Amino acid sequence: MTASPKLLSLLSSDPAEFAELVTGMQAADVAEALRDLAPGAAGRVIAALPFDLAVEVLDDPELEDRVSIIRSLDAGTAGILLDAMSADQQAMLFRDLPEADRTRLLPALSRPAQEALTLLLHYPLEKAGGIMTTEFMSVPPTWTVEETLQLIQRVGGAKETVYELYVVDPTDGRLRHVVSLRELILSDRGKLVTKVGSRRKPVTVDPDTDREDVARLISKYDLLALPVVDQAGRILGIVTVDDVIDVMVAEQTEDAQKFGGLEALDEPYADVGFGAMIRKRAGWLTALFIGEMFTATAMGRFEHEIERAVVLALFIPLIISSGGNSGSQATSLIIRAMALREVQLRDWWRVAARELPAGLALGTILGIIGLLRILLWQTLGWYDYGPHHLLIAETVALGLVGVVLFGSLAGSMLPFVLRRIGFDPASASAPFVATLVDVTGLVIYFTVALFMLRGTLL
Amino acid sequence: MTASPKLLSLLSSDPAEFAELVTGMQAADVAEALRDLAPGAAGRVIAALPFDLAVEVLDDPELEDRVSIIRSLDAGTAGILLDAMSADQQAMLFRDLPEADRTRLLPALSRPAQEALTLLLHYPLEKAGGIMTTEFMSVPPTWTVEETLQLIQRVGGAKETVYELYVVDPTDGRLRHVVSLRELILSDRGKLVTKVGSRRKPVTVDPDTDREDVARLISKYDLLALPVVDQAGRILGIVTVDDVIDVMVAEQTEDAQKFGGLEALDEPYADVGFGAMIRKRAGWLTALFIGEMFTATAMGRFEHEIERAVVLALFIPLIISSGGNSGSQATSLIIRAMALREVQLRDWWRVAARELPAGLALGTILGIIGLLRILLWQTLGWYDYGPHHLLIAETVALGLVGVVLFGSLAGSMLPFVLRRIGFDPASASAPFVATLVDVTGLVIYFTVALFMLRGTLL
Repeated sequence: MTASPKLLSLLSSDPAEFAELVTGMQAADVAEALRDLAPGAAGRVIAALPFDLAVEVLDDPELEDRVSIIRSLDAGTAGILLDAMSADQQAMLFRDLPEADRTRLLPALSRPAQEALTLLLHYPLEKAGGIMTTEFMSVPPTWTVEETLQLIQRVGGAKETVYELYVVDPTDGRLRHVVSLRELILSDRGKLVTKVGSRRKPVTVDPDTDREDVARLISKYDLLALPVVDQAGRILGIVTVDDVIDVMVAEQTEDAQKFGGLEALDEPYADVGFGAMIRKRAGWLTALFIGEMFTATAMGRFEHEIERAVVLALFIPLIISSGGNSGSQATSLIIRAMALREVQLRDWWRVAARELPAGLALGTILGIIGLLRILLWQTLGWYDYGPHHLLIAETVALGLVGVVLFGSLAGSMLPFVLRRIGFDPASASAPFVATLVDVTGLVIYFTVALFMLRGTLL
Repeated sequence: MTASPKLLSLLSSDPAEFAELVTGMQAADVAEALRDLAPGAAGRVIAALPFDLAVEVLDDPELEDRVSIIRSLDAGTAGILLDAMSADQQAMLFRDLPEADRTRLLPALSRPAQEALTLLLHYPLEKAGGIMTTEFMSVPPTWTVEETLQLIQRVGGAKETVYELYVVDPTDGRLRHVVSLRELILSDRGKLVTKVGSRRKPVTVDPDTDREDVARLISKYDLLALPVVDQAGRILGIVTVDDVIDVMVAEQTEDAQKFGGLEALDEPYADVGFGAMIRKRAGWLTALFIGEMFTATAMGRFEHEIERAVVLALFIPLIISSGGNSGSQATSLIIRAMALREVQLRDWWRVAARELPAGLALGTILGIIGLLRILLWQTLGWYDYGPHHLLIAETVALGLVGVVLFGSLAGSMLPFVLRRIGFDPASASAPFVATLVDVTGLVIYFTVALFMLRGTLL
């Protein structure tokens, strides 16, 4: 937060001191510092940086405003910098560029870079194809370890990673084998690359694989990069572990915001404009509000009962919120278990068979506490629930058992229903579950009351 | 799910076919298959695997039951396998072993492994020291690139990673420089290692750094490993990117469960016993229930108003749930922004200054919808809210504005308050916020009603 004004003032006053300062800085720190500057000022800093560092800074997705920064530069500088960027970050940047700038800047790129860009932009950002890079190292199966190591020395500097080498058949472009630089270094220089490393079939994904599944595979197999191959087995690109970490962070933010009951912001909280913020929140808030209107309808059905026994109304928020809370617990458990593939769609009855006794047990615990609370207040004279206080306490307790049981069941089943009908189970937010349970909870409570209090209060 | 019985049946029938099958499998897949077997059976499979694969499988944290598996093996086999495991996974396993097994198995380890284990077990699992490994590669500053590459060839096989080399001063053990294998390969063989790579100060953490911060640094600087140094700058170990990914997944699960309003399970949903599941959920559910009891108290204060105007009660669930929903939105936004360090403690007033108009705008939207809903139902004759229906509609609308405004403010400020008093801001779950807002929401609603309806309905 403090480095950027310093950067800017040094830039305009003492170029030597500026160069000295930034050379000792990590690219990610420069990117972070530039976030506080206006695009024009950040552009001037970028243009003044040593070339390699400038490219590294632009390559960093933490530099959120890089589209505006690139647009603030003259076409010559922008073109040279863009061309030196890594293919996946080039694509990320071009995705966000307005059409006019795309056509202006595309010719600045080399022919192979243009081709790579066309390929990468073809895939959506949510898929493996949209986050892969084309800058991987490949060798033919006839090469030796020594030849491969020499190639790395010659061209490794321009590649996204040199730690995974892809053995590709030159005749059909198919991926035959994957070998790590570690395995190469540890093995005999004269060996064929195909004889080095594991005999196991390489782990691959196709370009339409969900980026979440890419992250899961990289995590499961402890990979540094995952090759993306087409239907014929030809290698198109690789997804590296650092990009996957960025994906994981982004997905986590999205899921957290969804579970909180709003649309994913896609930008940092402080950077989202007021209008966009309201739109992202008002949509779900209004939908939930309209769903919750059924509580007014349900309550209307029981208006006469409330009139006759106002005391019943006192416990409405307590009872329906307990249903919402137990539902929110169950939903968060199941959404997460689904995301980790611990629970599959076909396991729904297994989950239901667990949530039924769990809901019953939790409801009983709350029911007993509720019963004691009413009797205690009555005994101590803190509140007078009238001559039928024992019946009222029992009604509240039974209502709680029913509502918590229903909440646990509904909350755990909702993600299954959503997935079954083709939605993201993570759309089952805590407020969504609470709304679902509120309406039914009221009906359960009043039905119990009608049954328990008929002939006395009702 | 289907591989494990096959593994087991092959093991007892045809050892050759078994060996053939597993050699083509990734260690992570074997680990996954073993999860479905009882520890004794899994132990027999492990003992029958090729040694290197067996070690790799035990090294995989996905093999959740490895403690029981190790305990099912005879001390000789267990000792040899344990000794070959990586230091960090050894420590992870020993952490979970009962005291008796620790003392039984510790002597099976080599002297350096025992020392490393003592160091690693000294730190809690939530800190950098608890997830680091001691198997990093270090060279003195006087070495050349060639000497370093030769060392990697000789001993690299036993190290966690050979992609980051640590230049350590032999006199005081301090970390002087970090160089990547890529930089070594690309540079002149005769150069000193200290002359290769970036001049920047290496990114390091101390052993008491939170593992979440370790993950953030690895993600920010795109590192493959992060060195852990003590106060004097001596290197103790490294945290590798694959371990950090495991940490990120674990933290994400913990946060999701916390936000759902329960204690983190620490185990997959299906593996948690019924009793443990109830305990993890009942704690928060009861606490929330006791908090929510204040709604009954608040409602009691307004019992006479409800008696006189039962129609007011009809909108209670609608109004308080809207407060809870807007609060849950605001909380999830701020918790996430704090986790990503987009928002600091000192930014609380900046957030409040945004949430105030946002809450007002969202409340107004819902208020207008609520007003229209009541007037529409009245006009269409779907419900009769009596002669004062316009006043009632206005009361509901104003109540909504107040409650949503309060919900947005309270929801956004709660994480700041929690952090200020030393709690994890992520403890501010959706149900927690809803409970907080329910009680105040009732008071706001009835206060508005008293003001609006005095002299007519009240």
